[in-house]
Amino acid sequence: MVTIGDVARAAGVSRSTASYALSGKRAISAEVRQRVNDAVLRLGYTPNAGARALATSQTMVIGLLAQFLEDEFAPAMLEYMLGVSDTARELGYDTLLVTDADGASALRRITDSRMVDGLVLLNVAQDDVRLPVLRAAPQPGALVGLPGDCSGLDVFDLDFEEAGRMMVDHMHRLGHRELILVSQPEHVVERGGAYVWRLQDAALQQARLRGITLHAVFGESRQPAVGRSLNGLLDSYPDATGLLLNNEAAAAALPTVLHERGLTVPDDLSVIGRYSDGFARVFSLPYSSIESAPDRLGRMAVRQLVRRIESEAGRAEPYVVRFVAPELVDRKSTAAPRT
Amino acid sequence: MVTIGDVARAAGVSRSTASYALSGKRAISAEVRQRVNDAVLRLGYTPNAGARALATSQTMVIGLLAQFLEDEFAPAMLEYMLGVSDTARELGYDTLLVTDADGASALRRITDSRMVDGLVLLNVAQDDVRLPVLRAAPQPGALVGLPGDCSGLDVFDLDFEEAGRMMVDHMHRLGHRELILVSQPEHVVERGGAYVWRLQDAALQQARLRGITLHAVFGESRQPAVGRSLNGLLDSYPDATGLLLNNEAAAAALPTVLHERGLTVPDDLSVIGRYSDGFARVFSLPYSSIESAPDRLGRMAVRQLVRRIESEAGRAEPYVVRFVAPELVDRKSTAAPRT
Repeated sequence: MVTIGDVARAAGVSRSTASYALSGKRAISAEVRQRVNDAVLRLGYTPNAGARALATSQTMVIGLLAQFLEDEFAPAMLEYMLGVSDTARELGYDTLLVTDADGASALRRITDSRMVDGLVLLNVAQDDVRLPVLRAAPQPGALVGLPGDCSGLDVFDLDFEEAGRMMVDHMHRLGHRELILVSQPEHVVERGGAYVWRLQDAALQQARLRGITLHAVFGESRQPAVGRSLNGLLDSYPDATGLLLNNEAAAAALPTVLHERGLTVPDDLSVIGRYSDGFARVFSLPYSSIESAPDRLGRMAVRQLVRRIESEAGRAEPYVVRFVAPELVDRKSTAAPRT
Repeated sequence: MVTIGDVARAAGVSRSTASYALSGKRAISAEVRQRVNDAVLRLGYTPNAGARALATSQTMVIGLLAQFLEDEFAPAMLEYMLGVSDTARELGYDTLLVTDADGASALRRITDSRMVDGLVLLNVAQDDVRLPVLRAAPQPGALVGLPGDCSGLDVFDLDFEEAGRMMVDHMHRLGHRELILVSQPEHVVERGGAYVWRLQDAALQQARLRGITLHAVFGESRQPAVGRSLNGLLDSYPDATGLLLNNEAAAAALPTVLHERGLTVPDDLSVIGRYSDGFARVFSLPYSSIESAPDRLGRMAVRQLVRRIESEAGRAEPYVVRFVAPELVDRKSTAAPRT
């Protein structure tokens, strides 16, 4: 491995001069600094991460707290993770992946030991036990997902309320008057997954406003329960002409259910989901959807975090809560209902 | 944050004594060491990661190099990642996730700067450009996937040769005499994905031995190409009675293709895939499969890596190449062919 000593020799300066030239801790002439930088490039010198962390208080690592919960859909979570880690790398940071079941303890361990310069949290709950730890930590934090209390943190999320209203309005314009909304399982709600009730409450309110009957139910997230529950819904509400899905597992299971029942989209049933375009491609899903924008949310969170990490001005900025406006990606799965 | 100074005060010793008691770098009486350890536990002290890394040459972090390639199937890759990160955590290590497109440069950056104690590489190619970098690095490395040259590294992989033979033999016993094997796309092979030709060559050899006609083709990995290519195959080989899949995307797309053609498994066609049980559940795949064991392979790689990291004895052990024996998970998708 190339050491700072090798750099100093190549630049013809003392070890401490080379070190000061790199750390910027003392004034070094531009000419010497240039010689040292040239030697660094020529030799491919990379400072020891531990030494760099102590010398600069920077680790160049971002912590990513992501839980793979049994009742949420792992492939959807992966997209958020990649949005974060790809953006971090573009900005010169590595990503420490933390998947501990006990997020609060993990967060305390990571922040106390100064392993990271900042943190991104996924799976944010309404009353998230990790947030008091994050607020007390010396490093800044950004959330993908809206908690009940946003103070002291930057927050990025899809505008789920507007997503619910858009789904209902789109179907209303086509002439639908009875719809089913399948949300995530009830235990996701119990755990504090606010995105479930935010979309559902807004959809119910908009349905009342438009004179639409909306059957709002919690779905399942695992096979074979998810297929059975979709079949049960279609049996229970035979007059419903449209299906709204805020549940990736239900969207992935629906093609098989419709095939089995001999139903065609959009002739027999109109369908709108809420998931990413990447998800639709991987799972070959033919349904129009509200784009959940996982890559964009990950990118926004990391960019804001790095602004706070890297500059005084960034640190001093007021905290933000930013919503991505939902967009409907048309895959021709909705039409006027049969009369 | 609790500092070493707080620990020293609570234990009634000097800061350097507290530090020596924790690092073990000087002999400290058992009584003093006990007082310091009690203070650490009481105060919840966690050493600064940078300082710990310098003092002990241990970072307690494992680097995980995983690429999300356009032509491989992201949800399948996720399972290997979680196998690694979950096992690392159980053993007290965090995971640095590295998803750079240029794996060799990323590996050099991570190892030179001593950010990790060891490394696990996924997406291993036959002639992988990262391996010379890994062999020259001061940290040990473990691979999930078999390269052409295993020297100086621990290697863990599914026994793809045996998997190919098992698929053919299973179908042969049921009475099938003409089969199709759909592998990963040809560019995965060109990139050096040895698992593709290892399974295919062994299956072709076994088919010759058993007097079976085996049509071995490279499939696609993205929609809508993967669906079209499956349809094309079934058109091209109308007498084939069984389908073998070494391609997760093809397995995920097959239910829709068979529905559209009005074919039923196993009455009209017998099918065996090669993927994990977790994958089968997430995608609701009804096909019997050779278990690809991503969690088990991740666990084996990390456990071996940590043995090398944590003990002289572990470091001195000969390098291993270990294959997981394939197991056929029966989901009733194979039967005797129609006569």
